Amino acid sequence: VAASAAVATEISTQRVYVFGKSKSEGDASMKQLLGGKGANLAEMSRIGLSVPPGLTITTNTCADFHSNGRQLPPGCWEEVLAGLRAVEAEMGCKLGDPAAPLLLSVRSGAAVSMPGMMDTVLNLGLNDACVEGLAARSGDPRFAYDAYRRFLDMYGDVVMGIPHHLFEEQLEKLKSERMVSEDTALSAADLRLLVGRYKQVYGRLGKVFPEDPYEQLRLAIYAVFDSWQSERANVYRSVNGITGLAGTAVNVQAMAFGNMGPTSGTGVCFTRNPSTGERKLYGEYLINAQGEDVVAGIRTPEPIETLARTLPGAYRQLIDNCALLEKHYKDMQDIEFTVQEGQLFMLQCRGGKRTGAAAVRIAVEMVEEGLVDPDTAVLMVEPGHLDQLLHPQFADEASYKGDVMGTGLPASPGAAVGQAVFTAEDAEAWRASGLPVVLVRRETSPEDVKGMYSAEGVLCQLGGMTSHAAVVARGWGKPCVTGCADLQVDEHNKVARINGHEIRQGDFISLNGSSGEIIRGKQPLAPPELAGDLGRFMAWVDARRRLGVLTNADTPEDAEEARKFGAEGIGLCRTEHMFFASEERIATVRRMIVAQTKEARLKALADLLPFQRADFEGILRAMDGLPVTIRLLDPPLHEFLPDGEMTEVCEALARDAGVTVDEVYGTIEKLQEVNPMLGFRGCRLGVTYPEITEMQVRAMFEAAVQVMNSGGVVQLDIMVPLVGTAAELRNQEQLVRRVGEQVMSEHGNVRVPYRVGTMIEVPRAALQAGSIATVAEFFSFGTNDLTQMTFGYSRDDIGKFLPTYLEKGILPYDPFQVLDQEGVGELIRFAVERGRTARPDLKIGICGEQGGEPNTVAFLHDVGLDYVSCSPFRVPIARLAAGQAAIRSARKQAAAAKQ
Amino acid sequence: VAASAAVATEISTQRVYVFGKSKSEGDASMKQLLGGKGANLAEMSRIGLSVPPGLTITTNTCADFHSNGRQLPPGCWEEVLAGLRAVEAEMGCKLGDPAAPLLLSVRSGAAVSMPGMMDTVLNLGLNDACVEGLAARSGDPRFAYDAYRRFLDMYGDVVMGIPHHLFEEQLEKLKSERMVSEDTALSAADLRLLVGRYKQVYGRLGKVFPEDPYEQLRLAIYAVFDSWQSERANVYRSVNGITGLAGTAVNVQAMAFGNMGPTSGTGVCFTRNPSTGERKLYGEYLINAQGEDVVAGIRTPEPIETLARTLPGAYRQLIDNCALLEKHYKDMQDIEFTVQEGQLFMLQCRGGKRTGAAAVRIAVEMVEEGLVDPDTAVLMVEPGHLDQLLHPQFADEASYKGDVMGTGLPASPGAAVGQAVFTAEDAEAWRASGLPVVLVRRETSPEDVKGMYSAEGVLCQLGGMTSHAAVVARGWGKPCVTGCADLQVDEHNKVARINGHEIRQGDFISLNGSSGEIIRGKQPLAPPELAGDLGRFMAWVDARRRLGVLTNADTPEDAEEARKFGAEGIGLCRTEHMFFASEERIATVRRMIVAQTKEARLKALADLLPFQRADFEGILRAMDGLPVTIRLLDPPLHEFLPDGEMTEVCEALARDAGVTVDEVYGTIEKLQEVNPMLGFRGCRLGVTYPEITEMQVRAMFEAAVQVMNSGGVVQLDIMVPLVGTAAELRNQEQLVRRVGEQVMSEHGNVRVPYRVGTMIEVPRAALQAGSIATVAEFFSFGTNDLTQMTFGYSRDDIGKFLPTYLEKGILPYDPFQVLDQEGVGELIRFAVERGRTARPDLKIGICGEQGGEPNTVAFLHDVGLDYVSCSPFRVPIARLAAGQAAIRSARKQAAAAKQ
Ligand SMILES: [Mg+2]
Ligand SMILES: [Mg+2]
Repeated sequence: VAASAAVATEISTQRVYVFGKSKSEGDASMKQLLGGKGANLAEMSRIGLSVPPGLTITTNTCADFHSNGRQLPPGCWEEVLAGLRAVEAEMGCKLGDPAAPLLLSVRSGAAVSMPGMMDTVLNLGLNDACVEGLAARSGDPRFAYDAYRRFLDMYGDVVMGIPHHLFEEQLEKLKSERMVSEDTALSAADLRLLVGRYKQVYGRLGKVFPEDPYEQLRLAIYAVFDSWQSERANVYRSVNGITGLAGTAVNVQAMAFGNMGPTSGTGVCFTRNPSTGERKLYGEYLINAQGEDVVAGIRTPEPIETLARTLPGAYRQLIDNCALLEKHYKDMQDIEFTVQEGQLFMLQCRGGKRTGAAAVRIAVEMVEEGLVDPDTAVLMVEPGHLDQLLHPQFADEASYKGDVMGTGLPASPGAAVGQAVFTAEDAEAWRASGLPVVLVRRETSPEDVKGMYSAEGVLCQLGGMTSHAAVVARGWGKPCVTGCADLQVDEHNKVARINGHEIRQGDFISLNGSSGEIIRGKQPLAPPELAGDLGRFMAWVDARRRLGVLTNADTPEDAEEARKFGAEGIGLCRTEHMFFASEERIATVRRMIVAQTKEARLKALADLLPFQRADFEGILRAMDGLPVTIRLLDPPLHEFLPDGEMTEVCEALARDAGVTVDEVYGTIEKLQEVNPMLGFRGCRLGVTYPEITEMQVRAMFEAAVQVMNSGGVVQLDIMVPLVGTAAELRNQEQLVRRVGEQVMSEHGNVRVPYRVGTMIEVPRAALQAGSIATVAEFFSFGTNDLTQMTFGYSRDDIGKFLPTYLEKGILPYDPFQVLDQEGVGELIRFAVERGRTARPDLKIGICGEQGGEPNTVAFLHDVGLDYVSCSPFRVPIARLAAGQAAIRSARKQAAAAKQ
Repeated sequence: VAASAAVATEISTQRVYVFGKSKSEGDASMKQLLGGKGANLAEMSRIGLSVPPGLTITTNTCADFHSNGRQLPPGCWEEVLAGLRAVEAEMGCKLGDPAAPLLLSVRSGAAVSMPGMMDTVLNLGLNDACVEGLAARSGDPRFAYDAYRRFLDMYGDVVMGIPHHLFEEQLEKLKSERMVSEDTALSAADLRLLVGRYKQVYGRLGKVFPEDPYEQLRLAIYAVFDSWQSERANVYRSVNGITGLAGTAVNVQAMAFGNMGPTSGTGVCFTRNPSTGERKLYGEYLINAQGEDVVAGIRTPEPIETLARTLPGAYRQLIDNCALLEKHYKDMQDIEFTVQEGQLFMLQCRGGKRTGAAAVRIAVEMVEEGLVDPDTAVLMVEPGHLDQLLHPQFADEASYKGDVMGTGLPASPGAAVGQAVFTAEDAEAWRASGLPVVLVRRETSPEDVKGMYSAEGVLCQLGGMTSHAAVVARGWGKPCVTGCADLQVDEHNKVARINGHEIRQGDFISLNGSSGEIIRGKQPLAPPELAGDLGRFMAWVDARRRLGVLTNADTPEDAEEARKFGAEGIGLCRTEHMFFASEERIATVRRMIVAQTKEARLKALADLLPFQRADFEGILRAMDGLPVTIRLLDPPLHEFLPDGEMTEVCEALARDAGVTVDEVYGTIEKLQEVNPMLGFRGCRLGVTYPEITEMQVRAMFEAAVQVMNSGGVVQLDIMVPLVGTAAELRNQEQLVRRVGEQVMSEHGNVRVPYRVGTMIEVPRAALQAGSIATVAEFFSFGTNDLTQMTFGYSRDDIGKFLPTYLEKGILPYDPFQVLDQEGVGELIRFAVERGRTARPDLKIGICGEQGGEPNTVAFLHDVGLDYVSCSPFRVPIARLAAGQAAIRSARKQAAAAKQ
């Protein structure tokens, strides 16, 4: 379906697509070209919903606009005018015609919803002449002047760059002059006066309000296109990893008025509850208001249920429309509507953002309702949704009740604990220095997104369940509480007050985003569990995926935890983590390091052996026959040395190891490295000191023999790190086999099932995968190191330039989070191909940080890996991503087969 | 031709090839299978020279011997026996037959000459019975017992592992008992007694001398094969980068006796002078001696010319044979011969090692003589030979005459200056700590090779021009003086005395390897020049090569120097090296680094601009229209900060830059990196601080304009370092073009011919070469960084494991010296292919350290690069390597076309 849009773009250069009762040129499949909003407006018109007519300027036009030096491409404006004629025909009024003025909304809308961009200009088309026409035609001068002053404010703000608060100040000033507290108490004459004052605001800043409605429209279109390249939008895209879009579309649509009195109103709603997934309309509205009033969170809106009483006809229409839309789109929808004098207009519909819990429930229930099949249901839950579900919850909600300071709206579920900060900048700065923060704001704006991203949770005094803060936080699965009437936030003095409590900067607070509770102090958290709908859902997932999902675990406890999350084995057990497990262990390791003779080193290694054996035994028992992949010692030896003053360190080590201070000093000096990441580590250690490998291998086999002798099942996979040449691996492999055979023969020839394999984490190993596979029985891509070396980026130092690179769009994302498919992925592709050519049954997996990242999992499915291995908490996410990848590639194959 | 040997190996499993008058199974083409010595013995027999008959066991047998757990493969021993029968038939005597005993020599011989292996056992076949037979048959019991005691010594030493000095002590003891000083003064009875005492030496060490000649032979064959895997041999191979050989062959040959009285003798000679190339026999011999006496350097031999007087018949035969051999092999030959009672036997011939000067002269003269064509002549000079020619000479030989302490044999030419050390271990250790040393020894042995390699030059009290020290040193082009009778070396007390001077450990001495002078102190050196024969030779080279040869040069002086060596442009100009050129410059750079505002940074950059412009102007003028490739700032900024106590550094910087100490401290802290090699450097700097790139580009264009305005010609190539993504390069490229256009328009639109290109030095850049080439007009492989990242080896830290890796054969050579063709080379191949697909006229070169290494140059020729760039001194070497690569690939193509 997406192809049709692409074909359309290539063949014609149609820039403008109209939608309306008589003709709708677009449809829902054309999101890339028309943006999500435009495509859905066209689709809603097409299926007969009541949608004010309008036109959409394509996303490609945005790209051309920017590459032409901020100029509309030739012919575009003429197409806009032609579309406008169609709108005017349907509406029976004309842009700029004082007798029957057409008023327009202008909105941005990319293929992906992006809060970072300009949202909306309403009431465009008004000027000193048309406002009189509107007053006459509506018979309501107050309405007309209110529309006009709102337009001047909004247009000034989003198109002309005049700060909103300058208009707000005039409004407040006038209200205090008139001694009224509500906007609605101002008369038509007052509002006409306000219009004059608003124009003076323009004048004082040297700006000219364009009286010509066509000029208004042209500049508004420019402003939408400009907003695509704004810093906010760029940040949003980089934070959310959004790439590959041409630009934003512009939607120009006839106005429907929610502010024409008590039988008018405007609202937003979801077809199901986006927090819990319950199948029931969920939303809010304001009587006698325009759309921005709801989203901006300035007036607190009414819950949607009450619309049944206040505007019953419109409510019935809304219920019907929602059912129709769900049936049509086969997904939960997020809707904007306006009621104009009792008549419902649909202004927008789109797939609704939802929490993880809601996503799973909706997917499962839609299968039950017969709306979708399980394949589709699996695709409806984003891997990030599971991440939310797996976010910590409070350990015991009952125990903190005495500390609850107040309650707001439960805008985004989950538990957050952090230190209060009051600005987005502070949130970023504190987080950068490792402190968990909760961002406390009066309300949030798109400028705050970076700060919100840095926070554990967000607390807002104002705003409803669909306010900016709520929508953004839910998108990220970040706990959020909004609309708390008891809370007063003083951002200037960095303090908040709530029911007699004071929250100062740095105070620990806890938020329960599921209940809306705001809690004093640092409440204890507990890990989440998989159950209920989720269990059923994951069964569908597992039935569909081909990739195995293993886990990275270093202790028997981690191993057991991971099995609960569905791990099918251990893909990476880092033996060195065990070295730090006790004072005695680390002291022994240090004795080994400062040993001045092979004998002394062997002695220390002999002391380490029982520790390692016990750990391996525990892990092998916990995994009970599932593969356990144990990596030989990897980090540079200096990582095991104590911190502190050199002299003291040397003296202590010398004392412990029975060598001289000078000898210790010499050893430590020799271990210093300029670039430790590229230094004496990985198998370079084992090749140089074979006795270290020998000890570790002996511990593994002795542990395996003990488990097997007590009736356990074992699959031992021994993994050599940092291999770059087949000769290195051969060296260690022969050592492993020799020691393994020796231990087995010492124990009555018990046959331990074992394999010897290697990490592929050095670019050269990927290139030489063919020769390495003649030795290795399995490969595991170590994408942390592979990414470091393929890019030449030290993970420890990338902070110096990564933010700049993301901002300038030089990198689409942090390659340590999301696998770089073009570079690192290319090496992986080579290695898989060459490895399998040399050894067709080669087992291939990944154990880098990115192993649990959904895009990466999908890529690795396509490349043909056998498994991914990730941290225990990411195991369910990886399972889902693997299931989705399998479904998508099956669908792709089916589609290809059809052609 | 080589194919025939391969075919033979595959089809038959013939293990033994005989040579002799009646039948010679091998020939000179079979070096891989029979080793160099075996193939040439077969060839000499084949063309009718007088060679004692023998047999050669193949090199493959050596490999099989080791993989079979030190056992001869089945059937091999039987083939040896069959070959022996043929030898016995030709010689008319039999192994182990007391009536007519056959005596044998057993020697190792791989396809490449390797001093690290076992060399020779002579007189094999003697035992208590056969010695009597030999005495009877020769009529000379003294000769027989001398042969026997020599055999016991040699066999004990090289086969049984009994130190030679234990036998030597017995000899000395007997001589003092008999109160004689010469070996020749001992009688037959004395020598018989000595035989008994030698056998006691065996007994005292628990060894049994095998009386059975067949057992003697079997064990000697084993010893030869074992010597292939000895540490010495492994070190020699790794130091010399010798790989891909199956093993050593064993040559078993009938003895010819040079010690049968005054009409017998033995010698070695070269068909031309290996030091100067002069067309005249060059060598030495000993009357009444066996071959080892000459090579071992124990008795000082006679120059070969005197053989014309002492054994005129043999001399004439030798002259004729040498002419025949040169005509046959079309190269200068290194010959071993023995004269037995007036009759000449050829024992060995091989291509002779020679100095660089000799190689060039021989190549040029052989063309003049019509022996070879210029293509062949170009291939006769090894790139390493030119390296020697380009080694420093003394600045003024006249000026040091007063400091000459004595004179020895000029064994290997060139000038060496260093501190005296007396053991190989000391040479290695001192060199490792950065001190230049001259190794002073009584004589050298294969155990000393590592130490010799570490030394600037070698001085030996004993030994002739063909002693171990001389041969090895000439091979490496290392100055060496041997056979200095005035010198007494006391290795134990680490002191030497010469004509009243004392040389203590650590004293600076200088050696003139061309004159044999031993000079006091640190004599000044001067760079060499290309002239004479070399000029003619290089013209042949240049006419044949396709690869351009550019140079890495950072200053106008370097640039001029490099043009003298034939550089065709600058492939790498490191702008940052200019930053250290004066106190004022580096201070300005530091002000730039600690600048706290963009304004302060711009101010410091403006101060740097004139310096950079002046440097660029000088370089552009020096290169006069040849391409000048200038790299933008590359190293991490902390490299420009001063060393020293942090507080003092901060205070000084703060004072200079007019900022606070805290600000400086903060800046320095931020610049600290865990892995600087993978950190904030290269284009990451220019992307983050565009003003740095702007300043550098402005300086380049302003310099170019000035040169052009004064009538100069310019080709400016601007190179962006450390690019990993096309977006990075695009960012810098746009900046370069913008600033370039601006400068040109400021100067009346002078059009500076310029290109923008990039280093390919990050693995990802090689993988993404296709997209990067859409932006880059040229590529230059930075193989230092590319090797670091492809292997994950930090150049600064590789010392911790590289020696182990070379010793264990995990790496065949240091990949920072010789390009790793399998890994790094694979990336280069990809990048060339992808880059040229995207941009067919892409210019591609290399500017890493390996750019002047001959094997690497040959590889890069084959891969299709346009040029290599290397340090000025390596330019002629790279030219030669490029010429040879072109000839070899043309020959390969011609051969392929024939088939
Ligand atoms: Mg790793
Ligand atoms: Mg570099």
